Amino acid sequence: MSETTTLTHATATLANARRLCEPALRAAIESLPDPLRRMAVYHLGWSDPDGAAVRTGWGKGLRAALALAAASAVGADPLIAVPAAVAMELTHNFTLVHDDVMDADRMRRGRETVWSLWGASNAICLGDALHALAIRVLSDALPGATVGTAVTLLESAVVEVCRGQYEDCAFETRSSVTVEEYLSMAAGKTGALIGCACALGAVCAGADMATVEGLDAFGRQIGLAFQITDDVLGIWGDSGRTGKPVGGDLIRRKRSFPVVAALMSQTPAAAELSRLFHSDAPITAAQATSAAALVETAGGKRRSEQYADAKAEAAVAVIPRHAKADDLISLAYFASHRNR
Amino acid sequence: MSETTTLTHATATLANARRLCEPALRAAIESLPDPLRRMAVYHLGWSDPDGAAVRTGWGKGLRAALALAAASAVGADPLIAVPAAVAMELTHNFTLVHDDVMDADRMRRGRETVWSLWGASNAICLGDALHALAIRVLSDALPGATVGTAVTLLESAVVEVCRGQYEDCAFETRSSVTVEEYLSMAAGKTGALIGCACALGAVCAGADMATVEGLDAFGRQIGLAFQITDDVLGIWGDSGRTGKPVGGDLIRRKRSFPVVAALMSQTPAAAELSRLFHSDAPITAAQATSAAALVETAGGKRRSEQYADAKAEAAVAVIPRHAKADDLISLAYFASHRNR
Repeated sequence: MSETTTLTHATATLANARRLCEPALRAAIESLPDPLRRMAVYHLGWSDPDGAAVRTGWGKGLRAALALAAASAVGADPLIAVPAAVAMELTHNFTLVHDDVMDADRMRRGRETVWSLWGASNAICLGDALHALAIRVLSDALPGATVGTAVTLLESAVVEVCRGQYEDCAFETRSSVTVEEYLSMAAGKTGALIGCACALGAVCAGADMATVEGLDAFGRQIGLAFQITDDVLGIWGDSGRTGKPVGGDLIRRKRSFPVVAALMSQTPAAAELSRLFHSDAPITAAQATSAAALVETAGGKRRSEQYADAKAEAAVAVIPRHAKADDLISLAYFASHRNR
Repeated sequence: MSETTTLTHATATLANARRLCEPALRAAIESLPDPLRRMAVYHLGWSDPDGAAVRTGWGKGLRAALALAAASAVGADPLIAVPAAVAMELTHNFTLVHDDVMDADRMRRGRETVWSLWGASNAICLGDALHALAIRVLSDALPGATVGTAVTLLESAVVEVCRGQYEDCAFETRSSVTVEEYLSMAAGKTGALIGCACALGAVCAGADMATVEGLDAFGRQIGLAFQITDDVLGIWGDSGRTGKPVGGDLIRRKRSFPVVAALMSQTPAAAELSRLFHSDAPITAAQATSAAALVETAGGKRRSEQYADAKAEAAVAVIPRHAKADDLISLAYFASHRNR
């Protein structure tokens, strides 16, 4: 397939997954008791802050699409993996609601975040409830033969996410972060859940453990490609598409992959960037713009794009041989070539 | 049994449960990746903030003891419920770590809280990881026949806890809170998990659903007795025993049961208390002492003790008839008569 065809295929795969999962996702959210339900419906883009119905979308649905694609890849009807797909999206959204509190981010998907509207305490409660709901979707739907495996995989991934998020927070006060440290953080924060989405799709399809592990490994590689691409979009993305404020990552001195790679480059631009990152003064919007140029000059953008491409290729290389891999391959390509 | 004998029996039952569960609880905590493990070991009283080993205890172990007692009550070896007991203590501790962030409480069990030492973000990560670990203890240990039921029960209880905690936070800015609203909050915040501890013990023992539900109902009543007693200790308890600062609940204008009951009393003391609670000025330690006297004069302490007693009796009344109930009865008595 050409690159354009591959991206078109991925876009259709994502839209189809969102369509297949939305009723079950909505039903799960509607089961929450009321103050929590209202915040969740807002967070997922189904209402405005006052509860009036809107449709702004609940994200890309990458994790849902990967769960369905993994089930399909091992020969099952993708519908069998809908509980896994919904559990993954609920888990992902639980982590977003908590991350926004930790990072003090006021905007997500172009809208005010839950903590910004209802306060940090209520956002912590909502994240905890979405976490519980994610697991309950699995324990309610899966048969005795697979429910234990699925729940253990998902909660093990959540522990890794917590470890990665802890490290990401710690990076903000560190004087230097190596590429290896960044990759360990991103493998936890992003890779573990995306790997788990693929693994759970395969578990729902009744795949053997070697296949489940192969698809988990595929997803973890995609996760790194996805996170690095996210970092690139966090600096050079179109905020109208990403829904995040321009320059926010740089203003926060976030140790994203492009910044880490730039700072390691031993170029004059790196030295100048380092002075900015090590000063105590707040970074202004104008300084963020010149910092973005410094990161690019120091090779941070190019290295990020190369690395994301390499990870997407590495992902495709570990897909189990017998799998029907079209959807998975297109989603791997999407992870490193999306613009939102 | 006399009251002293009953409390002695409860104390021995709790100590025995802690002894039986500690190895598995410790093993679960040790499985966490490192920055999270270190904070968890501190939180559970096994180390000081620098990681040096200490032994300050990980709480009363009421939920663990109830899980084991419920298994024993339906004729099983209590050891079969150790995974349930450990999952309940991990869940309880996840909620404590998050509650301390939400309530900005700096002291717990006589020691600095996790967020106070490591910041709110890291405490949120730790709570999330303990939640995941609690569920994984169940999914790793329970057979396919019961794991789905157990996980659904626990996560349904967590959703109720989140609802209760949300309401508790909301009460702090409300002009009035009724006894019914308080009881709905406490049924979620405290009753759901204590009910679940009993239910899961019975599930591990292979009890039928009617028995599981009967023990859940027993635990929920105990939970209310426990929370109201906790509120009484929060005002009149010995801070050397409770590990919490004197007057803290009153200084925070917390709508605890004694305060809610006092404010409803239509006495002169209630009117004076109401003025203090509705003023915008911070409550001083001296004002907290006189507020405690007002709550007592308005009958808030007496009504709390009566209500806690009534709930403990109601708990005992719903124990399924065929159950061997000695341990459960002593723990119900403990819930409403403890001094720490």
